[in-house]
Amino acid sequence: MAIVLVEPSLAVNVGATARAMKNMGFPHLRLVVPKGDEAHLSHAARRMSAGSEEILERARTFGSLQEALADLQVVVGCTARRGKGRHPLLGPRDLPAWLDRYRPETPVGIVFGREDRGMENHELDLCHLLLTIPTSPEHTSLNLAQAVLLVCYELGQPPRTAPRPGTFGNTCATAGEMEQLFQHGREVLLRVGFLDPQNPDRVLRVLRRMLGRAGMDSREVNVLRGILRKTDQYTGGNGVGGEKDK
Amino acid sequence: MAIVLVEPSLAVNVGATARAMKNMGFPHLRLVVPKGDEAHLSHAARRMSAGSEEILERARTFGSLQEALADLQVVVGCTARRGKGRHPLLGPRDLPAWLDRYRPETPVGIVFGREDRGMENHELDLCHLLLTIPTSPEHTSLNLAQAVLLVCYELGQPPRTAPRPGTFGNTCATAGEMEQLFQHGREVLLRVGFLDPQNPDRVLRVLRRMLGRAGMDSREVNVLRGILRKTDQYTGGNGVGGEKDK
Repeated sequence: MAIVLVEPSLAVNVGATARAMKNMGFPHLRLVVPKGDEAHLSHAARRMSAGSEEILERARTFGSLQEALADLQVVVGCTARRGKGRHPLLGPRDLPAWLDRYRPETPVGIVFGREDRGMENHELDLCHLLLTIPTSPEHTSLNLAQAVLLVCYELGQPPRTAPRPGTFGNTCATAGEMEQLFQHGREVLLRVGFLDPQNPDRVLRVLRRMLGRAGMDSREVNVLRGILRKTDQYTGGNGVGGEKDK
Repeated sequence: MAIVLVEPSLAVNVGATARAMKNMGFPHLRLVVPKGDEAHLSHAARRMSAGSEEILERARTFGSLQEALADLQVVVGCTARRGKGRHPLLGPRDLPAWLDRYRPETPVGIVFGREDRGMENHELDLCHLLLTIPTSPEHTSLNLAQAVLLVCYELGQPPRTAPRPGTFGNTCATAGEMEQLFQHGREVLLRVGFLDPQNPDRVLRVLRRMLGRAGMDSREVNVLRGILRKTDQYTGGNGVGGEKDK
């Protein structure tokens, strides 16, 4: 996977691009007729790369886009404009699924145009797929390095397939553990005089809903039970609590 | 939806952030103690904003993170570090589905730390949800404006989940109310001997994360504060609690 920049005019943008690539784990940078042959090795570029000089030093420079793409097999061109004959096929999010169709070793290039005016039509013609980053219609021009970051980020994401619900980080507590917690809480909160003995479950229900939503893990359940135990020692309870679940 | 930058040190980064926000259609910027009070209105910042001066001009400046968050209801903190007590629940892609659980008018803040060292633990404690942008483990430090672009981009994408968790019905508690709850809890749980006086915030952090995820409403906050008040009456406290917030 190579990132290809067409005629970047600011060395700081090339530096910031290198940083974004390094953040996302894509090391191969190609530059097509950059302004100032060695500008990407300048102090300004290195500073912006924030520790990604290696990418700048190993960047390959080409005299034309065609040369830069010659050994690649899949070329994706990024364009903001939706002009005639430009039918961006892809959003960034579609990219992993598309590239998944190729063998993993297939050399892919993602091409980004000039800071001020992107790519010419004849340059886009050299691309096999066109990609547009969705933006507000009022302000479609993205910073070059920001665009690279976003595309590289999407390339690192799993292909969009079946909708996956957001999982909670750790192992969730079981319904049994949650129930023991609520019973323990019921006892202690009755003793402490917080719950109405006539109808303790009405308010307890508020707590059930709230903690149920939080998707608690076992450690968190234990923290709350620790609080209940400590509290109970003050209320004349035995501080053990939730005996029923032993 | 507000983007909150904590102590940004470079005006150009604030400018580039404004551009990214405009690209993605998010106009509200808050700055917490920015380096140089008016640096975000400087020529350098304006130039980097590439036509998004309006966002810079309307940016609100605050003297502390707590003040910047006081009127928000959902606060998402962005952190690269995966330290102890930091359990980032979310990737950027999970964000739309999470926020979908709140009413559309719910004021949300996304907080980004300093360029060089992110946020302190006590600042992350003010956030209800933690988010980490996935990066290469070798190079986790993202450019500030690039990180903002990526999160804003994801916020503009449709939620990826089909199964949508139950929406948070009522009006959410504000960050200010949540913070009062945690301070009250800290007092009482110290008094009850549950929190370690040497390091009360370590375990308190578990509770912060857990309750932050739950998307509590004001009534639920009041229920928990009622528990704290009742508990406090047993511990020699005055049972009023959380005086500081009166």
